[in-house]
This record gives sequence, structure tokens and C-alpha cells, in this order.
Amino acid sequence: MVRLHAQRTEIEEIRFEDALDRVLAEDVRSPIDSPPFDRAAMDGYAIRGENSFGAAPSNPVLLKIKRSPVEGDKGEEGEERKAVVLAAGECIPIATGMPLPEGSNAVIMLEYTKERGDTVEVFKPVTPGKNVSLKGEDVKKGDAVLKAGKILRAHDLGMLASLFQRTVRVYKRAEIGILATGDELIDPALQSPEHEQWPRQRKIADANSYMLAALTHPIANPQRIGIVPDNYEVIKNTVRLSLEREYAVLLVSGGSSVGRRDFLADAVEDLGELIFHGVAIRPGEPTGFGIINMKPVFLLPGYPVATIAAFELLVRPFLNAMHGMREERTRILAHASQKIPSAVGRTDFVRVKLLRTERGYYAEPIRASGSGILSSMTKSDGFIIIAENKEGIEEGELVEVTEYSSW
Amino acid sequence: MVRLHAQRTEIEEIRFEDALDRVLAEDVRSPIDSPPFDRAAMDGYAIRGENSFGAAPSNPVLLKIKRSPVEGDKGEEGEERKAVVLAAGECIPIATGMPLPEGSNAVIMLEYTKERGDTVEVFKPVTPGKNVSLKGEDVKKGDAVLKAGKILRAHDLGMLASLFQRTVRVYKRAEIGILATGDELIDPALQSPEHEQWPRQRKIADANSYMLAALTHPIANPQRIGIVPDNYEVIKNTVRLSLEREYAVLLVSGGSSVGRRDFLADAVEDLGELIFHGVAIRPGEPTGFGIINMKPVFLLPGYPVATIAAFELLVRPFLNAMHGMREERTRILAHASQKIPSAVGRTDFVRVKLLRTERGYYAEPIRASGSGILSSMTKSDGFIIIAENKEGIEEGELVEVTEYSSW
Repeated sequence: MVRLHAQRTEIEEIRFEDALDRVLAEDVRSPIDSPPFDRAAMDGYAIRGENSFGAAPSNPVLLKIKRSPVEGDKGEEGEERKAVVLAAGECIPIATGMPLPEGSNAVIMLEYTKERGDTVEVFKPVTPGKNVSLKGEDVKKGDAVLKAGKILRAHDLGMLASLFQRTVRVYKRAEIGILATGDELIDPALQSPEHEQWPRQRKIADANSYMLAALTHPIANPQRIGIVPDNYEVIKNTVRLSLEREYAVLLVSGGSSVGRRDFLADAVEDLGELIFHGVAIRPGEPTGFGIINMKPVFLLPGYPVATIAAFELLVRPFLNAMHGMREERTRILAHASQKIPSAVGRTDFVRVKLLRTERGYYAEPIRASGSGILSSMTKSDGFIIIAENKEGIEEGELVEVTEYSSW
Repeated sequence: MVRLHAQRTEIEEIRFEDALDRVLAEDVRSPIDSPPFDRAAMDGYAIRGENSFGAAPSNPVLLKIKRSPVEGDKGEEGEERKAVVLAAGECIPIATGMPLPEGSNAVIMLEYTKERGDTVEVFKPVTPGKNVSLKGEDVKKGDAVLKAGKILRAHDLGMLASLFQRTVRVYKRAEIGILATGDELIDPALQSPEHEQWPRQRKIADANSYMLAALTHPIANPQRIGIVPDNYEVIKNTVRLSLEREYAVLLVSGGSSVGRRDFLADAVEDLGELIFHGVAIRPGEPTGFGIINMKPVFLLPGYPVATIAAFELLVRPFLNAMHGMREERTRILAHASQKIPSAVGRTDFVRVKLLRTERGYYAEPIRASGSGILSSMTKSDGFIIIAENKEGIEEGELVEVTEYSSW
């Protein structure tokens, strides 16, 4: 399939704090134990557990408070602190997260104690090791804490921070060129037709290039190149120059209809190889794919919903593969609220609304599903794919819904 | 709850192409019909449907081809085109999306025709209206196409583009200040301790401020202010100055333990009002919330997993309310793979791994769930919340899993 033509992007090393939502290019192994030392897991007093044996509310054990020099100590920067050592019969006030002083092996929680001057009454026994986070308990030195192919989330950045991993190796964001073709198109950001006059001029807004930029923005570096008229030479030269320039992938929408002379398909054929043109996807039939000088070109339909369907079915998996992503999005399992017809030999992209009921989720197909009908997208929560070997979905059948998201 | 203290951010008007993942502040009504004119939904010939009646493969109807002046016409910019008018017995070649010429009312698909010189053989009858997208079929002038509170996705931007909505009114991104407190903290981006020497210095990396920046980044403008030592005056002044400056919300992690003297809680109390301090959330107990000069301050736990739990349960809903968001994230329904104990009166934040089976999803709790254990986050796919009125989850019980995501 298309995905087999995907070449991994290069690997780059970036600061960990810039790596949100980026894809990890190699396993991260911890250079240290985490926590790096035994530490208190509760607020209270560090003690030798053995010293508390036999303690009870009616029979408290008395321990002498040793004030830790760590608390007030502001010593010289980098100066090694003098180690506090706890002796038998002593205790040291300690807060969650603080290192356990040498000589202690447990923490007695504040609520089971009462401070009286220089001594503490302990009302409950604690076994050695109690309320202590042991060195290496979270991560051991050498552990692969994050695996290649993972999309880095906020807590993954927290993990990198806690291990002092200042940089991280991720897949570079692919440079993606986006073209729209068609004499009928105008750029809605640049031109605002008088609404009365405009329909008579028979021009429509280029929505596709903006959608494709927004769809690819979370994972890649998209750039809208512009609108190209229905002219063979102009299309061919624009495609050639775009790929000679920095773009690693070209997405071209419109002009891929099989009816009239297809300038774009001809141009791709002329410049490289048109691998296929026309797919059994509804909407999305006039989708094509070619390779020019080892670089992929997607020929996407002019109709916006068809472009999104082709994007979800072909382009997104391709970009995922390019960026080394190993995770699949979790799909919502839902029951079809009604029968959804399809034909064997054709893949259907069905927009659905999700309804939450006591019996779980229901997926309700959006009617009026012409491929020009963008409102069928804006009214839906996600989509289901009816595979080409399936003759539709029965009412109540379990389906997988992919929600729209930012990658 | 906390959410009631959330004040909406201001509304700003931005370009539609910059509005990905932003929250719409008011309904968008269409200024036009879309499509703006009747247009072809298929490639073929525009005809009067009535002219094709009786056509059959054995008995084709012959229609005279009228070449549309639109096709070659490059006329002056803005010049109104001369309308093509179709007469009875005529047809005009037309491609999907092109406006239907006056006088025609249907499109006969290319595959049911054969061109012979100046005439076309039509092998199939089409009823008037067939293969035509009617004006206003997608959106009618005045329709609310996108509702206030919606997070704008790629296809919503496409809708805005297709309606020539050059700008859109959205909620401003809140300026969020992030502080970390604690003498034990060092900034992992700035300092890289020798791994041998460092544990003896008893310093740990500030992971929380980086996580909080990453968690809020998709919806707001977070800024890490820095690490503040455990000193009452320094903490108080930093909090005061931060809120006097541009920040609308302050997130402060660490230093909110109830054990030792809590400088941060004291500072908030002193500068404004500490609404609560200590919540029945595990992990996340030492979380607090205050208001200083009408601005919210969240006191978050020092332990990273507790900070994330407090963020998900309190801060995220607060920020959603601030940004006018009306959508809830869809949760994955899953069966608990085992009994998960909890206590009545306490809300539990349980990290889980999702397993897909033939019977649906299973949620498997991650063991070793100390609140310092970041690996319990990095190994999980999401979390479940056990409400405070529930005494744990039974094996097989249906639970709702929230996946980690970019808002």
C-alpha cells in the first residue's frame, strides 16, 4: 500500500521541553536511579523502625528530636553537606520527598505523633521501610523508560526532566507543500467577494488547502503554496519546482477528476510515476498517488469531504509512517444506530454522531452525505470506515469510531 | 466547585486560518448559501432531463454539443461572463463542481454517453435534478453552521473558508504563570549535575513546571516563572508580583504539604483568600485553591503524579470553563480487568493500560502507584476516576477511561 513508500524523516535532537507531541526516534534509557536516594513518602519523623515497636496510644515511645542541619543550611553553592546521622532513640522531622537521613529506615506519620519540646511521642509502631520511597523504585539506571515511536505527552516530558535528559532525539517534522488547482478557486483569506455579486462570477473558496494545512500542522510543517489554474504547463512546473524546493511531500487537491483531461495526473506521469489514480473509496474516488524523484505526491479530490476521507485513509497513515509513529489512535466502540448500506468492493467513509446511552455509545450516521457537504463533517463527532469486503453495517452492530483530533 | 470561580477570558478576533483548536466565542452564521449556485455533482454533460427520456443503449438520444464559452474564456479580471444558455436538444460538457448552465436541470454521467463529433449519444434517461448539487444544499444563508463553545477542527476551518469568513471570534488564550517551590529543586534544563555527585547533593529535578507548561500549552499561554526557595517572603513576593503582572492564573507546585509550615498557603492567605487546602483525592491530597485580587491560584502537590491528578480533576475543568469550552472529551468505555479498591469519601485517580479484546476494551490498573512514580504515568494509556461515593470498582465493571491527549 501507499504506506510502503513512506521514508522516515531524519532524526533531530531537540530540547526536552520542546518535544511535546513529537515522536521519539530511539529508546530513552535512564542514566540514573529515580528516586536517586531513599526518601520520605509521608510527612512525619524519620526514625529507626525498630525503635517504635510496642508503641501504642496508651503507651507512647519517646524519641529525642535531632534537628537536621539540612533545614536551615544555606551553605556555599556546591559545597557538600555534612551528613546527618541518626542514632538509636532519635528522630528527625521530615517532609515528603526529603532524603532519609543515614541511620533511619522508616517514617512515622505526623498524625501518630505528638511533639513535646525536644521529644516526640510515638503512638504506633512502624516496620523498617514503612513510608519510604526506595532509591530506584520508579526507574532503575539503564531502564528503557520511553520507547522509540512513542508520541511524547506532558508526563513523558516530566519523566525526561526528572532524569535530567536535557535533549531528546525525535523524528524531524516533514516539510509538506500544499497546492490547490482549479480556475474556479479563489483564496478566501485574500479575496472577499461581494456576496451579491460573487455567485454570478461562479468562483468558490479554496477550503481544501486550509484544511490540509490544519490537518498536517500537528505533526509536520505544512505550507500552502497557493492556487494553480487549470493549465498543464503551470501545474507541471509548479509541481516540479515545489519538489525541487524543500518539500518532502506534496498534497495537491482538485484537478484530479477522471472526467475531463486531468492535467495533474498527466503532469505527475510526465515528471515521475503515477502509481495509482482512482481508488474504491466513497467519497474520495478520484484520489491518486505518484512518486517524483523519490518524493511522494498525493492527488486529492476537489470536494472537501472527499479530500478529508482520502486524507484519513491514505495520507495520515503515510505521515504516521514517515514520522516513525508506532501508536494507533484508540477508537471508540459504538453500536450502529441504524443499518448503513455499503457495497462490496468499496471502502466507505461514514461520518457519525456519537450518542452516549446507558448501554454504551451509539454511532448515528449523518444524512446528506454528498462529498461537497462540509456541514456533514462539522455536525459529526468522528467517522467509521466500512471495509471493502463488507456489505454494509447492520443496526446494532459494533463499529469503531475515530474521533477528529489534533493528531 | 472550583469551576464556579472561573471567569471567561476576553474575546478576540483572529484570522480563520489561525483558529485551529481554538474555542469559538459566538455562533457563526452563514452570510451565503453554500453551494452558492446549482452545480454538477458528477462529470458528464449538463442537459435538460426531459430530453433524455426514452434513451436506452439500443435507442440512444442524440444531443448537440454546445461548447461552453466558460471553458476557454480568460476574459478581463472581474468582467462579468456572458451567460451560457442551453436550448432544448443541446448539452454542455461539465465537470464536477462546475455551475449548471442556465436552461439545464440535470447531469448525465459520462459513462452513459458517447461523444461523436458534435453530438453526444445518451444511453440512459435522467430525471430533472439528477446529479446536481442545489444552491444552499450544504448551508443556507443565516444558518448557524458552527456553535459557540466548539473547539475548531480542520474541517471547521474548511467550513469558515468556504463561507469566506476571513476572521472568527474566539476566547483569548489565558496567560498562565507557573511556579515551582522547594529548596530541593533544580532546573533540569539549566543544570546537569554530575550523575555520580548529584544524589549526594540531594537535589531533584523540577519536573512539575515543565509538565504543567506542556499540559496547558494546547489551550493557554503558559510561562514558567521559575523555582522559588522555601522562604516565606520570597514566595509571597513572587506570587504577588506574578499576579500583578500579566498572569491571569497562577499554578504553583510543591510547598503545599500540610506537614511542615506551608509558606505558600500562608502567603495566599495573607495576600487574598485561601478557599480550600487539602482535598480528598488520591494522589493529590495537599492540593489547594485561593483567590488573590480576583485571580485564581492553584496550590499543587510537589509529587508529579499527584500534580497531574490535581490538574486533571481541578485545573483542566477550570481552564475549560475559562475558555468557554462546551465540549467534553469522549471517554473510552472499558471493563475493569480486576477489582480496584477505593474508600468512600475519597476520589481516586487510577492510571490504567487499555487492552483491546474481542469483548471490547479492558482497563488494567498500573501497579506501584506511589505519587512519585512517574513511570506509572508513562506506562499507562489514560486514567479512571473513582468517585468519592464509590467503594472501589468490581472486576468486569464498566469504567470510563480518559486518554492522555493534547487537550
